[in-house]
Formats: sequence, structure tokens, C-alpha cells
Amino acid sequence: MHTLVLIRHGQSEWNLSNRFTGWTDVDLTEQGVKEAREGARLLKEGGFSFDVVHTSVLKRAIRTLWLVQEEMDLFWLPVSKTWRLNERHYGALQGLNKAETAAKYGDDQVFVWRRSFDTPPPMLEMDDERFPGFDSRYASMAKKDIPCSESLKLTIERTMPYWFETIEPQIKSGKRVLIVAHGNSLRGLVKYLDEVSDDAITQLNIPTGLPLVYELDDNLKPIKHYYLGDQEAAAKAAEAVANQAKGG
Amino acid sequence: MHTLVLIRHGQSEWNLSNRFTGWTDVDLTEQGVKEAREGARLLKEGGFSFDVVHTSVLKRAIRTLWLVQEEMDLFWLPVSKTWRLNERHYGALQGLNKAETAAKYGDDQVFVWRRSFDTPPPMLEMDDERFPGFDSRYASMAKKDIPCSESLKLTIERTMPYWFETIEPQIKSGKRVLIVAHGNSLRGLVKYLDEVSDDAITQLNIPTGLPLVYELDDNLKPIKHYYLGDQEAAAKAAEAVANQAKGG
Repeated sequence: MHTLVLIRHGQSEWNLSNRFTGWTDVDLTEQGVKEAREGARLLKEGGFSFDVVHTSVLKRAIRTLWLVQEEMDLFWLPVSKTWRLNERHYGALQGLNKAETAAKYGDDQVFVWRRSFDTPPPMLEMDDERFPGFDSRYASMAKKDIPCSESLKLTIERTMPYWFETIEPQIKSGKRVLIVAHGNSLRGLVKYLDEVSDDAITQLNIPTGLPLVYELDDNLKPIKHYYLGDQEAAAKAAEAVANQAKGG
Repeated sequence: MHTLVLIRHGQSEWNLSNRFTGWTDVDLTEQGVKEAREGARLLKEGGFSFDVVHTSVLKRAIRTLWLVQEEMDLFWLPVSKTWRLNERHYGALQGLNKAETAAKYGDDQVFVWRRSFDTPPPMLEMDDERFPGFDSRYASMAKKDIPCSESLKLTIERTMPYWFETIEPQIKSGKRVLIVAHGNSLRGLVKYLDEVSDDAITQLNIPTGLPLVYELDDNLKPIKHYYLGDQEAAAKAAEAVANQAKGG
């Protein structure tokens, strides 16, 4: 049996200010820091340890990971950072307030951008300062891979190659893997592991900071999955995430 | 021309309590945190940036690096951690107070252990709980590589393969490399780059937290090297390191 743990980063500054974040590199709030530490405490209490970690190139995930490493005294863990685990790119909506955007484009349109499986938000222009091609952390990306906007579908399509090429072989070789990432890149992994439908995955809310544990058989099929900690708290956290989505 | 930057981790808890540290995984002091932040500020002020980082598997180096990444807003940098950049292994002296050790074995003996180029301190027994073979971070090391004690010579001999196999090719390919490591692993790199003699390298003191910049030609021969920041402060910091050594 193999064990895989997923953690969604704690609350970020733009979660709090209700703005579309995507690839914008905002930090955790104090609340987000607390969530990360609490997640680490649950992992320690549960006797978990890891051999290798994967995360995105965005600081809210990386800081969440650092806090977990610090609390678990696992500073030395090898960490791989990849844009493929980044949050969904929110296109021209990045930086806009969710309520203001709804007032401007209408609730229905914003609902589609936020919750449809395969409709990307309006695209960034290539000369927009928000275009990832201007950011040195993406300098080694193939030009065709640099997104101007992503639907959940597109996000999953660029996340999964990393799972198949990098993470799966490590798990199969016996490594205990931790993934610290974002709501939508994690949705991709959960969709694949649990064979969730396109429709259902748009409704699935992963709470922030709570370790999501998968027990996998030798073929990496899930035997079961569960959140660490108080199950009621986990349900409430997922609901809070869903409500925040509605509120936008 | 290539630029390479070396940083020795900030003051650690056992620098402060005057104990032999070696591979013991102690954290930074508050002073050490300040030193790391100040080093980062100097790098930022100097307009430095990096493509890739190398550090040890010891938290005083890793935390120094995290502070630099945070201050420079370079969370996303790819980081490789290797035991080959660890501090010298201090054998059976690890954890002992330097003054007490001098009182027990005599100043002359301790001076040899501390300052000779090729005399290792007393070896750890293989069943000593301090033996690195019991630590999961060293699980992938070849048994023959796991040290029970290291002279400066042995430290340099296990550090340099990492330079030749990993770091040098990256610099030659145009990557801007940062190395955050320890007094003795950095001595190894400096000895090689500047062709320092065995005797002279034991006298060379690298101050903590101050970025040491090498400008290298296309064959990676040093054109010059210098510390960032106030040169007087750099000289004073090196002297403080040397005095601490004498005081031990």
C-alpha cells in the first residue's frame, strides 16, 4: 500500500480581499499561516512522514510547505517546484474584485467563468504585464505552454503530465509523497484518482490547510481517502470554500 | 563572465553556546536570522538574482536560504539540497562544549582537531545515536560515504564532486548560482577556486550571512571576489569568527 498526502495552501491575501488570484503571486494571511501549521500538527500527530515533496512556483503554496516542513522538522526534504501544479490561470480577470466583476458582467457570466468545466475566462493580451511570459520564473517554459487563461479542463490537462511523468513513478518506487498545491490543480489529481465526472469536479471543494490522505494500492488505485483532524471541521471548511465561491 | 554567490549560514544556536556542531541539526539564533536578512538585503541592493540554488540538508543553512528567498521574493527558485554541502562532521566531539573539551583533552589537542587540515576528530562509534546512518535524510547515501568524523581535507574531498558534477555545468550553461552552506564546505569551494594552500585554508574565515561574490571567466577561473556591504564590517565579521575559534 502507498500513502499520498495532498494539502491545499492556507488562506491567501486575495482570498481575503475576494479577488481573482490565479497565477498572481500573493502571500498567505495570518489565518493561512495558522492553517498550514495546524495541518502540519495533524500530520505529526498522525505519524506521517515523507520522502519527497512537490509544489507550485507560487509563494502561497511554497510558504505553506515551509511551515509544514518547519513544524514537522523536515527542512531537508527534497522539494520540486513546477508551474504544472500552479493554480488555474484566471486570464484577464486576475486582480479584479469578484463582486465588482459580477456587477459589471452579470452574475450568470461570472458563474460560468468560475464554475464551468471548460469555459476559460477572458484571455490576457500577450503584452499585458500580467502575462506569465514576462516573469523570469516561467523563462524555461515552452512558449506554447504559457497560458493566457485557463478553464478547469485546461488546468487539469497541464497538471496531469506531471503526475504521470514525475509523481506516479516516485510513488510506485516506494516514496512517500506530499503535494502542496492549489484548489484547481488538486482538483485535477482528485478527479483522476477518484474518477470524478467533469460536472461533479466543479462542485468539489477542498478545504485549505487540511491534509487529504489517499491510501493507494499497488496500481495506485485509491483504497480510501480521508481528511486528517476533526471531520466536522473538514466539512465546515469545505463549505466555507464553497460559500466564498457563491459570494463571488 | 559568470557570477557565483556563496553565503555561510547565520549564527546558529550552538555557535552561541560554543558547542561542536558538525552535522547536528541546530537552528539559527535571532542574530542568525538577522544576518540572513541583511545578506539578502545586500543582494537585492546590488541587483543580484539567481536561477538555481544549492544548499545542505541542515536546517541552519536551509533557513538562511528561506530568509534570503523571502527577502528577495524568490520563493520559486529551484533548490537542491545535498549532504555534500554539509558542515564538516565533528565525530565524537559533536555536542560537546568547546571549552570543556579543551579542559579535558588540553588546548593543544583541541587546536589540532579544530585547525589541522587533515587530522579528523575522534570517530563516532557506528552504534552511537549521533551516527548519520540512523537519520532518514541520509538513507540514500552509500554506506561507504557516511562519515564517523571528518578532517577539513575529508570534508573538501566529499564536497568537490558535487561542484564538478552539478554546480560547474550549471554555471557553464549560463545559470546564476547561489550556494548557501557552511564554514568548511565553503572553504572547500574557495580553496579550489582561489588555489589556496592546505595550510592557508585552515586560517581562512568566512563571515556568516555576508554574500561572497565571485566573478568567473569562461573557464570558471576567478577574475575577482569580494564581500557585499561594508568592507570594514566584513573584515570585523571574519575576525569575530576567528576569535570564536581561538576562544574554543
